[in-house]
Amino acid sequence: MDLGDWRIKIDALNEQLLALLNERANCALAIGKLKKELALPVIDSTREHQIFQKIKELNHGPLSSEAIERIFRGIIEETRRIQESPTSV
Amino acid sequence: MDLGDWRIKIDALNEQLLALLNERANCALAIGKLKKELALPVIDSTREHQIFQKIKELNHGPLSSEAIERIFRGIIEETRRIQESPTSV
Repeated sequence: MDLGDWRIKIDALNEQLLALLNERANCALAIGKLKKELALPVIDSTREHQIFQKIKELNHGPLSSEAIERIFRGIIEETRRIQESPTSV
Repeated sequence: MDLGDWRIKIDALNEQLLALLNERANCALAIGKLKKELALPVIDSTREHQIFQKIKELNHGPLSSEAIERIFRGIIEETRRIQESPTSV
């Protein structure tokens, strides 16, 4: 495979990642709505810890568990941002 | 769907994201190797700009294009980290 072939593959992976990220954000919005109805706090540090544990256990690289945790922290942060936005409720 | 059901769905999405992130990292490692052979620089800001353009065009939310760009910047940064590591060549 040459550079162009690899880039086509990366573009396809980016597109799949984009779709999953938005699907995940939709789930998080649904959870946010449910939590509001149940008067539960938006942030649940036990659940967050559980998420990081799970993905680290499932990770076989080449990205390190620390790298994966940083990426997922970014994803969760962006999701929280739309959960807290007044238009998202 | 209750909170537990949504969380099962989020866990499944996290697992798919993890697999795609590592698959993407493997492609980036292959590109890094190829660039080294061709004596090309690792960082290509034109290509990077193109990636952000593409994913922003494809994005229909609920995550904003800015949020998506921040997440992908994080992914690219982590990938670059392993590309530059001496054990990854």
